[in-house]
Parts: sequence; structure tokens; C-alpha cells
Amino acid sequence: MSGENCLAGLKILDLTQFEAGPSCTEALAWMGADVVKIENPKVGDPGRSVGGKGAKDAFYFLQYNSNKRSVTVNLKDPRGLELVKDLAKTADVMIENFAPGAIERLGLGFDVIKAINPAIIYCQVKGFGTGSPFEKNLAFDMIAQACGGLMSITGEEDGPPCKPGATIGDTGTGMLMAISILGAYVRRLRTGQGEHLQVAMQDSILHYIRNAFTVMERTDGKAAPRAGSKTVGGGNPPIGVYPCKGGGPNDYVYIYTSAANPEHWTRLLKVMGREDLIGDPRFATPAARTEHRNEVDRIVSEWTIQHDKCTAMELVGSATIPAGAVLDTLELANDPTFRERGIRQTMKHPVVGDYVMSGWPVRFGGRTPEVKPAPLLGEHGEQVLSEWLHYDASRIADLKNSEVVG
Amino acid sequence: MSGENCLAGLKILDLTQFEAGPSCTEALAWMGADVVKIENPKVGDPGRSVGGKGAKDAFYFLQYNSNKRSVTVNLKDPRGLELVKDLAKTADVMIENFAPGAIERLGLGFDVIKAINPAIIYCQVKGFGTGSPFEKNLAFDMIAQACGGLMSITGEEDGPPCKPGATIGDTGTGMLMAISILGAYVRRLRTGQGEHLQVAMQDSILHYIRNAFTVMERTDGKAAPRAGSKTVGGGNPPIGVYPCKGGGPNDYVYIYTSAANPEHWTRLLKVMGREDLIGDPRFATPAARTEHRNEVDRIVSEWTIQHDKCTAMELVGSATIPAGAVLDTLELANDPTFRERGIRQTMKHPVVGDYVMSGWPVRFGGRTPEVKPAPLLGEHGEQVLSEWLHYDASRIADLKNSEVVG
Repeated sequence: MSGENCLAGLKILDLTQFEAGPSCTEALAWMGADVVKIENPKVGDPGRSVGGKGAKDAFYFLQYNSNKRSVTVNLKDPRGLELVKDLAKTADVMIENFAPGAIERLGLGFDVIKAINPAIIYCQVKGFGTGSPFEKNLAFDMIAQACGGLMSITGEEDGPPCKPGATIGDTGTGMLMAISILGAYVRRLRTGQGEHLQVAMQDSILHYIRNAFTVMERTDGKAAPRAGSKTVGGGNPPIGVYPCKGGGPNDYVYIYTSAANPEHWTRLLKVMGREDLIGDPRFATPAARTEHRNEVDRIVSEWTIQHDKCTAMELVGSATIPAGAVLDTLELANDPTFRERGIRQTMKHPVVGDYVMSGWPVRFGGRTPEVKPAPLLGEHGEQVLSEWLHYDASRIADLKNSEVVG
Repeated sequence: MSGENCLAGLKILDLTQFEAGPSCTEALAWMGADVVKIENPKVGDPGRSVGGKGAKDAFYFLQYNSNKRSVTVNLKDPRGLELVKDLAKTADVMIENFAPGAIERLGLGFDVIKAINPAIIYCQVKGFGTGSPFEKNLAFDMIAQACGGLMSITGEEDGPPCKPGATIGDTGTGMLMAISILGAYVRRLRTGQGEHLQVAMQDSILHYIRNAFTVMERTDGKAAPRAGSKTVGGGNPPIGVYPCKGGGPNDYVYIYTSAANPEHWTRLLKVMGREDLIGDPRFATPAARTEHRNEVDRIVSEWTIQHDKCTAMELVGSATIPAGAVLDTLELANDPTFRERGIRQTMKHPVVGDYVMSGWPVRFGGRTPEVKPAPLLGEHGEQVLSEWLHYDASRIADLKNSEVVG
């Protein structure tokens, strides 16, 4: 049992770039789909140079395009366009995330492709949805996070909006599209029906911040606020990050006590050696602790600061109170258990060399799917033209000589 | 064409609670899967009372459980356990997200269920993965965000770690499991093969912060820092939120200029009426603007503060520079275009009444799947026992009288 052969035979014609689209098709590639990237012969997916253009593909590109193949096609040449249509005729899924209107201007819009292949699952990832007042606007991850409400609820209570470090606008959207593609594909296997899927990054953000909307509904319709490290609704004190020994930027432990479980507070007092406060009316109930929130935070901090974050996590966690050290990317990268468990894997790239990256974190029969190299630009032109279209060597040579394919 | 019938016939036995599991099965329910929640007869999914226990189900519960059915089963009664096994025998998917070890103690672990139904897709969502040093620890969304690196890269540059307002630890994990379930299901349709899927919330966070790892690799292996509203790598100035007229907590506009597109800065100067600065060596290149970052931010702020955030977004966006107003949950809730486009929908709940919530944001043939009510506790016991197990009325009555089912 393993995940790599789940989607064997699923052909995906992938015209996406950067992250929202590529993260989607990569998830499907990890489960065995045959993902063929169509790229511009000159520079390819602009993601290849995110973080600085060198001679080698950027780490950014590697991590969103593992397990895929690449074909470069000159879409300005009519034969290039014809070639992509031939590929679309045999594909199960076609997906793009160009700027608004671009795919239609290329002559590869939904109506064109549907006429060629009525059973295709044609997918579009955009910044803003059709019918949105901003539907013609450009969007990147951070724009979606701003316009989708997420930045309004991230940051310190009295500070400006922050951008979460995770790319929910991009990868978050890509995941929703991947689910929808597989849903449509299951039906297609049964009925042969094609589908036109569209998702907007702004709309996707709304899916990930639903708790904030419930908080708004519960608080007389006031916009959900920022709450620092607490939950959007403020939560039950103590909750949030508390400073630990070391004093570094991430020397903090998260402690979460639940209003639904009154034992959490009592147990925490015992862990902290503050049995003297058990039953103290200032702290005896969630309401009392909320009223004396600053005092509660001070008491907890006085204890946490005496311990390093991992010890604090262990001591609090052992009392079955949810607790977590604030781990940084370096600590995670240096923890060998992620590699042992296949959560982080080494991509063996022919040009870049070894690159350790996070792969698909879901285990199939105890094992995560294997990370294979991201393709070099145009690496698989001959292979794909031969396998998908059964072109012979002389036809492929002709297309290469005419610079229709790279 | 629409999404509601994609997964018709897919039977999911759902023992999940709160958000990570329920968000996963809800996505599948929206696409037509028959999701049957098994709940404790007394209080059910504890999510039913998140945000304060009243007589009615919490909004929190409604929004993660729409389009599902509910059966209450007393798992302490051997006949209740037998009943769940009978349901597992006929289900395609079984999923749980109890505390570590709990499902095994219940007698419904993978080995037991696999023996009953070798073709089942058995799914587990946990806080920490098997083999992790924390595998026995409890985890909630915020613990996963702390231990998965996301909080270390969220917040002000010189401030403490912040928790993003989105529940990436919960819903973010649920989405990865949903993709994996459908991948395994596609293979099962072809080969009949079952699968054991496991995902940990901490591991899932790593999937959503991959950019931070590349930033770390590019910067001599230093842990990725917090960057306020900028991208994790710092980005090309100007980038981030700039204050707008009004002075409210969310009166900001996000402006993103790209290092890859030198025109962005020049165009922005024109929008701001600062043609005098075009070619100024202090700002002429990304490197120069990074050196004079504070000065760049001051110049941009002096202009943005004169406009409300929507006007600023429009003016900057019209010059094809990515820009986005920081919208809050109230502004989003009040924007009728989300309801017109089916991104937000009204759940007509028999007890709570009308509740407007965010549904599945992906459109199938131009339309999002329809949001149907979340089930009342135990609402569908008779229905499911009759449909899935073909129990007759007297057998069902007997189980109800013995309080095995609710």
C-alpha cells in the first residue's frame, strides 16, 4: 500500500505558474497523476526564478513542481497552439492560472477546449471570482490574504494587519481546486461528464477563516478583531504564547486551556507549583480569569520564563493540557524525525543537487509518497509527444527544428 | 453541470469532531458524498457547543457539518459497537480524529476495521504523526500552528509570534486529507484496494509554509523570520500594508511591487503624482529601494493616507500593480456579491433559523454546491439504519428503546 499509484492514468495538461496552480497539480502528481507542464520556451514558469534568477531553477520552483514533466511550447506559433489543443484532446484535466482574460486571448478558453474534448475537466484559478467587482484585477497570495479578510484578523490587538507566513492564498486555494478536480474526476469515471471548475483566491480565503465569521455573529456583528497569539474570539485565559528561557525571537510556548474543561486551569496551577491559587476567586472561573487576564498571564509567564520552550511544552503537555513550543523553520529542518517519517524528503535534482523539502504529509499505509525531481525546462518534450500523441521521431524533430517545441 | 452529484454513492462513516476532521468530510459532502456522523447520544460532537453552550447548535458546528447526517450511538454498549462495525462493513471510507489511542481503545482501530472490510479507506487525523517525539500529545489548531513553524513566521518583525487568524492546523489539514481520500477512492474504484491514511496537523503546517523553508535555504540557513505584512523573504519595497484615510484598524491597502517587474515602481510613482522621483538613484533599483526602505514606505504612506482603502486599491490596481484593500469580516459579510455568486449562502436550519455562511468556494459550471442544514443530534438514526443496513422498523425500535441509538 502506498499513494504513488492512486491516480495512475490521470493525464493533466498543466498551464499553471507560480504557486496556486502548481501546488494543486503537484498534489495530484504525488498521488500518481501524469502532470505535463506547458511552459514558455524562453524562461518557462516564472516560478523558476523566484528568489533571484540564477543559472539553476529556484528552490521555490522545485518544491511546487516535483514529480511533474515539462514540455516547452511556443504558443505564438500556430503550430504550437495546435499542439496544445492536441494534448488537450487526450487530457483528462486542463488547468491554468494566468491573469484574467489571458487564456481566452491565447485561444485556449473553455469554449474552445470543450469543443475539442467535451469530457475534459477544465480548471481555472483566478485572484477574484467572475462577478466580483475586482474580477479583472491581478492578484497574488498577499492580495488575496488582504482582500479575503485574513490579514484583518492576524496581528497584534493594537497593531497593523499582518500577513500570515503561510501562503493560504496560493497553496490554500490550490488544495481546494485539487479536491474539486478529484470530485469531478470520480463522476467522470462513472458518467463521462466533463466539468468547468473555477476558484478565486479571495473566495478561498473565506473558507479558511470561517471561525472569524462565527465570532462576528456572536459579538453583535462587529468585525472580528486581531488577537495576537490568541484565538480570534479571544479564548479562555490562559491562552497564547508565553515567554521561555533563552529570550530568542521564538523562545515561547503556546498554552491552551479550555473553557469547556475547568480541570485545565487547576492542573496548570499544579504544574507551576502554584497550588496556593487553587480556588482563588480571582481565577476560579473562565469569567474571573478573563476579568483578571493580565494577572493570569503574568503568573503563567513567571513560570514559563524559568524553562526552555521544549521543557515547558513537556511539563504542561504531560498534565494533558494542550501545549506547544513555537518551533522555527531551522529547528524543524534539523529535527531528524521529519525525514525519518518521510514528511521532509531529499529531492535529487540533476542540476541543483540535493534539496531537502516538505513533501505530501499524508501517509498511505504508513508511508508518504516519494518526492521526485522537478523537471528541467522542456525536459520531456519528446517523451510526452510520443506517449500522449504518438508522434514519430521525424515529426518531433521537425517541431523542434522549427522551435515550436523546445 | 454542478458539483453536488460528483461523489454520489460514496459512503463515509464519520467519527470526527471539532474542525480538522469535519471540514474534510464536509468538503466531500458538498460534492455529494453520503456522510454519516456517529455521535455520542448525550452531547454529540463537542463542536456543537463551541463558543458557548446554549439550547441550539453553535454556528461553529453548523458551518463544519452542513450537508451531513447524524446518528447517535452509545459506544459503551456492545450493541452500539457492533452497530458501528456493521456500518463500517458497508462504508467506503471511515474517518476519525480522536485523541491519540482513543479509537483503538474503543475497539475500532484500523486492524479491527480492516478485518471486517478490507477495501475500506480508513483515515486518521492526529495532532502529531506516528514516530514524532510528541505523538502522544494532544493538539488543537493553535498547537499545530506553534509546533509546525507557522507562528514563528507570523507577526511583527520585533514582536512575539502571532497566530494567523485562519485555522490552517484544522481546516488546512482537513483539506489535505480530503485530497488523499479521493485519490485512494479513485484507485479503489479501479482496483478494489483499501487504504490506511494518516495525517498529522503539525506535519500539514509544513506543507503550507514551504516558502519560508526556501527563504531559510537562501539565507545561509537562518530560521525564517517574521516580516509583519511583508512576504517571509522581506520582498521588494514597496511591499506590505500602507495606512489609508479613516484610521480604523483595517484602513490599510496592500501594495505589492515585484522585483521581477521594474515597471511597477515607475507606474506607482505616476499613480502617486511623484514623477519627480522617477530615476532618482535612491529608488531606481530593488537594491536601492531596499537600502532606503523606510524612505520608500514614507513616500507611499504619504499618498495612501489621503485615500480610503478601496480608492487606493482601485487607483493602484488600475495601473496593473497588484493591490488589495484590507477587508474585514463585516465588510465581506456585507458585500452582496459573495451571496450573488454563491460563495456565501444561507443555511436554513430548523432550530437555529437562517445562518449565512461561507460554502465551498469552487464553482462547477459556474455554480457552487448548495449548502444544506447541518444535522440535529441523532436526526438520521432510523434513516441510516434502514438505508445502509436494511434494518427493519422493529429492530430499529428495539435499538432505540435500549438507548443503543438515539
